[in-house]
Amino acid sequence: MAERNIKLLIAYDGTKFAGWQVQKNQRTVQGILEGSLARIHGRDVSIRGAGRTDSGVHAAGQTANFYTDINSIAAGKFAYAINSYLPEDVKVIAGEEVDASFDARRSAKARVYRYYIYVSRVGLPHYRHFCYKIRRRPDIVRLNELASVLIGEKDFTTFTAAGDKSKNRIRNVYSSVFYVRGDFLIYQITANAFLWKMIRSVVGTLLECEKNGIKKNDFLAILEKKDRSRAGTTAPARGLFLERVIYSDEELY
Amino acid sequence: MAERNIKLLIAYDGTKFAGWQVQKNQRTVQGILEGSLARIHGRDVSIRGAGRTDSGVHAAGQTANFYTDINSIAAGKFAYAINSYLPEDVKVIAGEEVDASFDARRSAKARVYRYYIYVSRVGLPHYRHFCYKIRRRPDIVRLNELASVLIGEKDFTTFTAAGDKSKNRIRNVYSSVFYVRGDFLIYQITANAFLWKMIRSVVGTLLECEKNGIKKNDFLAILEKKDRSRAGTTAPARGLFLERVIYSDEELY
Repeated sequence: MAERNIKLLIAYDGTKFAGWQVQKNQRTVQGILEGSLARIHGRDVSIRGAGRTDSGVHAAGQTANFYTDINSIAAGKFAYAINSYLPEDVKVIAGEEVDASFDARRSAKARVYRYYIYVSRVGLPHYRHFCYKIRRRPDIVRLNELASVLIGEKDFTTFTAAGDKSKNRIRNVYSSVFYVRGDFLIYQITANAFLWKMIRSVVGTLLECEKNGIKKNDFLAILEKKDRSRAGTTAPARGLFLERVIYSDEELY
Repeated sequence: MAERNIKLLIAYDGTKFAGWQVQKNQRTVQGILEGSLARIHGRDVSIRGAGRTDSGVHAAGQTANFYTDINSIAAGKFAYAINSYLPEDVKVIAGEEVDASFDARRSAKARVYRYYIYVSRVGLPHYRHFCYKIRRRPDIVRLNELASVLIGEKDFTTFTAAGDKSKNRIRNVYSSVFYVRGDFLIYQITANAFLWKMIRSVVGTLLECEKNGIKKNDFLAILEKKDRSRAGTTAPARGLFLERVIYSDEELY
């Protein structure tokens, strides 16, 4: 019997999750979703996500897919079925049936992440799990000069974490920009893929370089050194959101 | 010895508080703040807040005052001193020394509250503690027609809760308006004071009246009936924020 392939759009508050990927004895988003799918199917069903977000990292638009032999639930209704077994910190926002060949991870052309920075001396406690609070307002023009250096196909070894297992550290960054929205200074980066903790390392380094008056060419030199010790402090997980996953070339730019 | 009178601006995530006011065996904002003041002073110090927010209600700009015999801490530095003993869900944003006669509650000319409505079918889980999620997008023009009926000096008995002990139920509403900001539909209401649960009752009733096509004159009739049973459902506490407290007539309009 042919199974249907269902693509899901998923949002979660990463605060109390040990990240996306299933790990033994840990509360993970994938684990919680597979638990819900198991209850609906009466058997184990695995789900594949586009981005393996780390512990404490959030998602506004994670994408995942799973195969099902249930024909009685319309693709759009799977969101409600799955949500009925989910805790309040993870929600399936939408569902649609896709081609059997669609793989949330391998079919993805790019991932869009946002990093929320909150500039405030004390600040509203309501935001505490969803941003990185800093006290000094950085110069957004200078931040954007530095951020633009990352655009293109480059080796991002400088911004990897010690545990990164990638053989090839070249990634293609399509956009890298800071902008203000409401109370937040947001850094948005789109790339085909990211190294482990790369975005948090990039954000921490960009903020430090702006603060220390590092010029564009010196920042480029840091990138080209391919030396992790040249990177700044890794910014905290709580400011990072997987905003959306891109599956068509038209959406890349 | 003359004591200094310190005015504080306070923000809190009301989710895990049983409201502002001290109650036996309950975690309250006033109680937590007085605990911090007691540690700084080595004795009990009482604090007086402008708005007695209910359980689950938030504040972006609650105002309070307390008297101190400590001269070694500048008024602006009290925020840091108090914050050092506070949990992460309440923060003192600012402090200033004020005239001995200033009373956060009695000196207040008006309170500004915001109610956050989130219109979404499923919605981001990150917002779950800070708004009231509804599925259908209301007509903001019609909501504002209805909301304008509340402006002026009126008897708000229709919108009290059963436990309200006010003898006089006339309140002066200076503004009452819906607007969109970011992902939220916000209802902002400014009045000299409010009856118990009045704003949540107003919001619930306005949303129901808009949905049911109630006209401005019929809404006015509901208000003028002074009959609580005419009001709609009380909207949940989690959407309500005490935005700021007004102490000068110039800021009223």
